[in-house]
Amino acid sequence: MLSSRWFLEFTTDSEAALHSIEEVLYTAQTQFQRLEILRLGLYGKALILDGKMQSAQSDEFIYHESLVHPALITKGDPRRVLIAGGGEGATIREVLRYPSIESVIMVDLDREVVEACKDLLPEWHEGAFDDPRVKVVYDDARSYIEGIREPYDIIILDLPEPMEEGPAIMLYTEEFYRSVYEHLRPDGIMVTQATTIAPHNLNSYRIIFNTISQVFSVVRGYYTFVPSFYAPWGFVLASKGADPRGLMNDTLRKRISNISGELRYYNEEIHRGMFSLPGYLKRALEEEDRVNRDSSPISFY
Amino acid sequence: MLSSRWFLEFTTDSEAALHSIEEVLYTAQTQFQRLEILRLGLYGKALILDGKMQSAQSDEFIYHESLVHPALITKGDPRRVLIAGGGEGATIREVLRYPSIESVIMVDLDREVVEACKDLLPEWHEGAFDDPRVKVVYDDARSYIEGIREPYDIIILDLPEPMEEGPAIMLYTEEFYRSVYEHLRPDGIMVTQATTIAPHNLNSYRIIFNTISQVFSVVRGYYTFVPSFYAPWGFVLASKGADPRGLMNDTLRKRISNISGELRYYNEEIHRGMFSLPGYLKRALEEEDRVNRDSSPISFY
Amino acid sequence: MLSSRWFLEFTTDSEAALHSIEEVLYTAQTQFQRLEILRLGLYGKALILDGKMQSAQSDEFIYHESLVHPALITKGDPRRVLIAGGGEGATIREVLRYPSIESVIMVDLDREVVEACKDLLPEWHEGAFDDPRVKVVYDDARSYIEGIREPYDIIILDLPEPMEEGPAIMLYTEEFYRSVYEHLRPDGIMVTQATTIAPHNLNSYRIIFNTISQVFSVVRGYYTFVPSFYAPWGFVLASKGADPRGLMNDTLRKRISNISGELRYYNEEIHRGMFSLPGYLKRALEEEDRVNRDSSPISFY
Amino acid sequence: MLSSRWFLEFTTDSEAALHSIEEVLYTAQTQFQRLEILRLGLYGKALILDGKMQSAQSDEFIYHESLVHPALITKGDPRRVLIAGGGEGATIREVLRYPSIESVIMVDLDREVVEACKDLLPEWHEGAFDDPRVKVVYDDARSYIEGIREPYDIIILDLPEPMEEGPAIMLYTEEFYRSVYEHLRPDGIMVTQATTIAPHNLNSYRIIFNTISQVFSVVRGYYTFVPSFYAPWGFVLASKGADPRGLMNDTLRKRISNISGELRYYNEEIHRGMFSLPGYLKRALEEEDRVNRDSSPISFY
Repeated sequence: MLSSRWFLEFTTDSEAALHSIEEVLYTAQTQFQRLEILRLGLYGKALILDGKMQSAQSDEFIYHESLVHPALITKGDPRRVLIAGGGEGATIREVLRYPSIESVIMVDLDREVVEACKDLLPEWHEGAFDDPRVKVVYDDARSYIEGIREPYDIIILDLPEPMEEGPAIMLYTEEFYRSVYEHLRPDGIMVTQATTIAPHNLNSYRIIFNTISQVFSVVRGYYTFVPSFYAPWGFVLASKGADPRGLMNDTLRKRISNISGELRYYNEEIHRGMFSLPGYLKRALEEEDRVNRDSSPISFY
Repeated sequence: MLSSRWFLEFTTDSEAALHSIEEVLYTAQTQFQRLEILRLGLYGKALILDGKMQSAQSDEFIYHESLVHPALITKGDPRRVLIAGGGEGATIREVLRYPSIESVIMVDLDREVVEACKDLLPEWHEGAFDDPRVKVVYDDARSYIEGIREPYDIIILDLPEPMEEGPAIMLYTEEFYRSVYEHLRPDGIMVTQATTIAPHNLNSYRIIFNTISQVFSVVRGYYTFVPSFYAPWGFVLASKGADPRGLMNDTLRKRISNISGELRYYNEEIHRGMFSLPGYLKRALEEEDRVNRDSSPISFY
Repeated sequence: MLSSRWFLEFTTDSEAALHSIEEVLYTAQTQFQRLEILRLGLYGKALILDGKMQSAQSDEFIYHESLVHPALITKGDPRRVLIAGGGEGATIREVLRYPSIESVIMVDLDREVVEACKDLLPEWHEGAFDDPRVKVVYDDARSYIEGIREPYDIIILDLPEPMEEGPAIMLYTEEFYRSVYEHLRPDGIMVTQATTIAPHNLNSYRIIFNTISQVFSVVRGYYTFVPSFYAPWGFVLASKGADPRGLMNDTLRKRISNISGELRYYNEEIHRGMFSLPGYLKRALEEEDRVNRDSSPISFY
Repeated sequence: MLSSRWFLEFTTDSEAALHSIEEVLYTAQTQFQRLEILRLGLYGKALILDGKMQSAQSDEFIYHESLVHPALITKGDPRRVLIAGGGEGATIREVLRYPSIESVIMVDLDREVVEACKDLLPEWHEGAFDDPRVKVVYDDARSYIEGIREPYDIIILDLPEPMEEGPAIMLYTEEFYRSVYEHLRPDGIMVTQATTIAPHNLNSYRIIFNTISQVFSVVRGYYTFVPSFYAPWGFVLASKGADPRGLMNDTLRKRISNISGELRYYNEEIHRGMFSLPGYLKRALEEEDRVNRDSSPISFY
């Protein structure tokens, strides 16, 4: 018998997904957004903000390992990491696997979301919020980063999509990326989630990639798949010199072996595979010349 | 304004996708299945059989390049190729890019589907059906393969999912794979689409992989993403000796350079990346011991 | 912003309704059926059994007043009433408005449903379960009625639709109606909900009406609308002599004035209006000759 | 097997209906609105404007007989009738059944809709557009009515719902109804469709009723059900004196007998029943004091 209760998400005006709901764990209208934590029939628990799936229990490890490890492995001995967004705590969880980590700052706008995740999504954070190296700041990521005094090794942008009137629209512009650049150490690395790389919906990834290319000297696109996003998912890693594609096999292997705990998705082969771009994507990135600027930030659905 | 007309596909009892419909190009109840060719808002034209998306214009190239090239590149000089299923003609299209091809037999059950694809989906076949090396046979793939006299270099299984009472349920069993094995040349290769590798829905891929492993000495899992399937998509390549992971860089490069026309997805890096399996998938395949047999064939949703 | 959470109900293979869910109040798999109590965006609380809306807060009064009052007003001084089904308690609530009532027996199969309604749907029962004249029996309505010793004035069939393998399929047959007839007093009246009278879906109403016509001498169809059922809703009133259409104005007015509390839907005009059948319905009932029998009970979607 | 193709209509932000589509007969973006003519699984052909169901083959007769006959029967010998809207031609069809009719003017904004209905919906108009007494004018109904020189016996407002930025928003205001009043003969009658009377969504009906009550001396609410609208549907009949509830039985019977052709819904009993308002609706209309004015026209979803 079909389920009665469904989570309906319009991903564009022309596409929607329906997921059966097993349990409604939490709903609230926070100061910034509509928050829902549901248990879905197929994906386990899911965090939903303003009606859009943020991460799901069955595959959040793919997203979070993909977001964190390429950058930290490329850096080698990450000490000071800043995370913008990342309310579920799983990004912190992955960062803390590196023994070299001294300090992790997570800047999230919405205290109510973070508190709900702490309480209801322990499978995501696994206690990471309680680690003494971790500090959570409730602030706008952009103004916080602009005010940083001591630069970071790594800045991870784990943000919602840049939707019109959404909280993240000013966190994908050239001016913002310049600010990130300035607050990274000379061997620092930035990584951002960068929306889908599906061929029919490639616009936003292209623009984000090209915008970051205005600022950083080494810019690498990579991607993974996240089933609960119904799409292949893109990221951009940018650095002042280090190149994730240039790591020697020995170095890569040794650094990965230093990660504590069990990796469920990422490994040496996956590191290589993620940066192997399909033909259509390579060509699209080469052709792109649009830049996303504060004066007219592009909003994606 | 939201579209009025939607294609609703339940992928399981707990999940469905909605795609806006721009135009209904063709609908029919054939002898074997319900056939629909729609133009969707996001994906362009789409072939739908028994309510399930088979391929869509915007990303069929990802599926078909992924299905065909790893096997044919591993073979090196494919001459005689058999395709089971593949009604759209895009699998033939990819096979014909190899100058060494002498003969391609496509065995599809449903003449009405193939005729409709010939007529309405020229973007898929690009005239491939008219190539003098191509022959289309309307028959059950299993009985046809069992009756083959001269073995093939390559057998490509481009089949619908093994659904209960669906036409393909007996085309994923150990007995069937033995028949394929017997009708391959000593250096022959089989490749099959093998359902999703999403972590929450990994059952069918695991079983197909393990079943093929009972028959062939070299069995390699690989995957791609197909946005219109809303899922990462798995394949299994099996051979009597040749290993797609063992190709030297020079060999790989040289063979790919012999492919005529423009590749939109596949390339040298992608070949390497596709066979790089995530940790969760490696472990699942190692642990699996179920075998799919004729006596009680497993059906997937 | 669109809601995220929806109640999806397929009313047939060709039609479904989506209602936003504000709150999930209760869900359970009982011994007999799947039970859900939701708070919907438009209709307030709703009782859902096996995925089908049973009644909703905003319009249950239309259904329950329509089910109860025509029969009890036609009877005039109802004393002993039996209700088959009616788990929400709203049918009892309406019956208890008649000062002449001495005893109400409600026979419902599913204790867990009744307990949940008692607890969570006080707006329906308004404490009716606690009235000393009321007795609830948990049993199959058919076998209970067959075992009745002292006949009733009124038997109200407040049943789910006769779905295949559903609990009510044997409660719409000629044999069952004969049993009801035998357990009514000589001036007794039976009334049953009888599915929709929508022109495109009139089959079940026609058959129920004609089946009852095999048993009772006076059989009257009537209907109302229940917005949360998305359909005009039909009932059949049957008696051994009394005719709801034959009440004199004075009698009707006087009897209605004896009903205690406020009527929200039913009144003198409505009583007349309900029995005024549209042309298409009159003709359909005249033409119908199918009878629903135990030997091959018809099941409706 | 479930249908693949569905018509999805959000009736509010909290409710939607899904209907299976058998065939897409016509789609266009006209100068004024999005036009779709579909064949639905349950309801036969359907006219859809801006994504909202206007009428369906299986029950349009209920809507159109309910809209036309109470007013024309109350008038008795209608000669000159003006219809605002009514593109399908079924309102004209019903009007032409009265032998006294001399002239019917239909004023519809959208020629493309009317032409498509003429062509594709003969079951609605049954050739009525070709009757020599009929004239179709493509104009804004409001400005056309303001310019009328010779008053009408009957003005029928067969309009889409007053949605924000929709073409009908200024056709439900007090100022408009005054213009209608002025262009009716002394014994003239106006009737309008007036949105749903469902208890949970009664706002618009109440306001329309009260607005008309500012202008006409006799104002009567009535209603029917239209399954394809998923709701009980309200109308308002207003006159300068004649009262549809005051017709003697003989008069009513005689006038109905003069209607040519077969009535499928309306009859003498139905005429009485339609004006029998439920308690909740009577009270709502008594309490209402809002008036819809040009200066701030209310828009309904």
